[in-house]
Amino acid sequence: MMDPMDELRPPTRLMLTPGPSCISPRVYRALATPLVGHVDPWFTEFMGGVQELLRRVFQTENNITFPISASGTGGIETAVVNALEPGDEAIVCVNGVFSDRMAEIAERTGAKIHRVPAPFGRTVDPGDVRRAGQGRKIKFVGLAHGETSTGVVTKLEPFRKVADELGALLVVDSVATLAGVPLDVDRQGIDICFSGTQKAISAPPGMSPITVNARVEEMLRKRKTKVQSWYFDLTTVMNYWGKERTYHHTPPISLIYGLHEALRIVLEEGLEASWERHRQNQAALIAGLEAMGIRLFVENPEDRLPTVTSIYIPAGIDGVKARGRLLNEFNIEISGGLGEIKSTTWRIGLMGYSSQRANVLLFLDSLERVLLDQGMKLSIGAGIAAAASSFAHAEPVPVGHGR
Amino acid sequence: MMDPMDELRPPTRLMLTPGPSCISPRVYRALATPLVGHVDPWFTEFMGGVQELLRRVFQTENNITFPISASGTGGIETAVVNALEPGDEAIVCVNGVFSDRMAEIAERTGAKIHRVPAPFGRTVDPGDVRRAGQGRKIKFVGLAHGETSTGVVTKLEPFRKVADELGALLVVDSVATLAGVPLDVDRQGIDICFSGTQKAISAPPGMSPITVNARVEEMLRKRKTKVQSWYFDLTTVMNYWGKERTYHHTPPISLIYGLHEALRIVLEEGLEASWERHRQNQAALIAGLEAMGIRLFVENPEDRLPTVTSIYIPAGIDGVKARGRLLNEFNIEISGGLGEIKSTTWRIGLMGYSSQRANVLLFLDSLERVLLDQGMKLSIGAGIAAAASSFAHAEPVPVGHGR
Repeated sequence: MMDPMDELRPPTRLMLTPGPSCISPRVYRALATPLVGHVDPWFTEFMGGVQELLRRVFQTENNITFPISASGTGGIETAVVNALEPGDEAIVCVNGVFSDRMAEIAERTGAKIHRVPAPFGRTVDPGDVRRAGQGRKIKFVGLAHGETSTGVVTKLEPFRKVADELGALLVVDSVATLAGVPLDVDRQGIDICFSGTQKAISAPPGMSPITVNARVEEMLRKRKTKVQSWYFDLTTVMNYWGKERTYHHTPPISLIYGLHEALRIVLEEGLEASWERHRQNQAALIAGLEAMGIRLFVENPEDRLPTVTSIYIPAGIDGVKARGRLLNEFNIEISGGLGEIKSTTWRIGLMGYSSQRANVLLFLDSLERVLLDQGMKLSIGAGIAAAASSFAHAEPVPVGHGR
Repeated sequence: MMDPMDELRPPTRLMLTPGPSCISPRVYRALATPLVGHVDPWFTEFMGGVQELLRRVFQTENNITFPISASGTGGIETAVVNALEPGDEAIVCVNGVFSDRMAEIAERTGAKIHRVPAPFGRTVDPGDVRRAGQGRKIKFVGLAHGETSTGVVTKLEPFRKVADELGALLVVDSVATLAGVPLDVDRQGIDICFSGTQKAISAPPGMSPITVNARVEEMLRKRKTKVQSWYFDLTTVMNYWGKERTYHHTPPISLIYGLHEALRIVLEEGLEASWERHRQNQAALIAGLEAMGIRLFVENPEDRLPTVTSIYIPAGIDGVKARGRLLNEFNIEISGGLGEIKSTTWRIGLMGYSSQRANVLLFLDSLERVLLDQGMKLSIGAGIAAAASSFAHAEPVPVGHGR
């Protein structure tokens, strides 16, 4: 039992979860950099630099691009409460816990939300969205680019097309994809895109980068009612992040320092190299897991999110006990399932600084030990060998994040 | 002009503003401590410790006591959107920008808000609150214990009495007071009390500690409608900060580390010693300013907030230019006014780690130089001498925060 006044001495963990991911020592150093004030002229110029780096990572020219002072869920809330007014209608594609959360938050605005579902582990059918929207005035089509709860990635182009047919905005949750999976906000025509900092960007949790285009700016200007949240109100918070730098609320300055350093690291590596690193490390992980006889939760390989791999807990294995042993004996954290697949699946995150070859090998070796001890029949070393072989056949990518 | 990819190299500032205040090196070290996951068993136990330290600082036994994952304005929003449902009525005492903000945020819930005003620089008359509430069903009486925008502190007892007469909750913004000014949530009968981390606690900005009592818990259970904000919904976020530790959103783990260290420092010093330090340092500051012929904005000495001192910009002084010189030449940041007193006042914060004797002396000396250079007639050294004399006559207090 800790005494609350005890000094801070957390264990050293390897976080292979769907966030937070591990963080570069460079980012920790940035976090420990002495503060300046939030309206200090040095800081207000620095904010512009952070916004520019975010534009590069989102691949956008959007003027309104900045980190919201809240975690990813605050990004969802910002996106939907600014887009919706009472009486509006919107469509949310629901194929997991986080896309369901978008619908749930949107419902609290007094708008009518049409949920278009797909089973966990699958993507929503764009045709279903078209049918749901026919004959209605739809404000936006919302979806999770990467569903963190299931490990599913959704191709954006068909949804942009349907949204165009419906005259709707496209709202994209890129919390689990930004910097880890190809995403090009301007080319893909995303109107509102938000993300988190603690995933493939590998900054600490606590901010949610967002970008909105000129069409959304125009919509904000035409709103008839005030945005129901003051804290998340883009029409006013942008006076601080916009040209005027007018005080709105005090942002988490230390986290902005950390985010800046993490974005530098992402851009030094290069977006394409980062995507390739995430792809290669997941490919090796999957090769290893399959060689151990473990079944992937997402059946269609094209639907698998490179940053989060969902697997069925092997038959006969006590999932909670096995994860506990990984944590307590090997200091490796992986996650259980969420929602309806809570007790049947595990989720392994390989994101940002956590997505390294060494981590894949260490995890497979540790998992093998834990499963063997619970009596699973395994050919010793088969998993790690398959992963190593996958790496041996991978194209070289520039060194980044320890690769 | 900075290049956005340049390394992080902020200037070293002495922040004598109404937040953020300077921070102990111990807190920076805590910020740089490697993360663990937000559902790691070590972390969920550690959270309990942070909650316990917050209870000690708020002086409460309230079960629901935790830091909201947002800055102080998020605390205001949490307090009012959880307390109010559409059709409710509430009273907000408005004597500055932040109490006005409470009213503005409350109005976005669809409740009817009665603003009871006082001129900037004064406290609201509890009799006015009684009259505004008579014959109405008032859900809460809200006020800012310390008005950061004007430097006014309000005595809570008369408002508790009026709230009792009206059968209303008492909602208190303690952003500018917690740990710097006497505050005792349980003894003073505050139903909802929220604060910020970047003021007298001297942790980085980005969290807002809140505490609510059993009466509020009961009210939350009886709500007929969902809280309009999902992110700030106490009925669900408390499943994460409560016994269950059920995932709600990913909190800013690094900031929680920093907050823990800052709370340890506050409690090592002791609340009473901290209040006394803030009182003594402000008394010396005021002695110095008055010796320089500078007029205090808050006329009644009893109404002066110990953490934030508002002064009139001396006649003939270009306020923006003078603050700019303090910043650029002496690396000292003070703040301009807010709202209607923006161009006529300055605000000097002496909070937490910034509230040190050496800072009072350094500031008075630097200010003297700047004012002399703008042609103000001053007796050289009079300000610093008056402050030194004030210190010489002060009761010794235990060493804390460099005192």
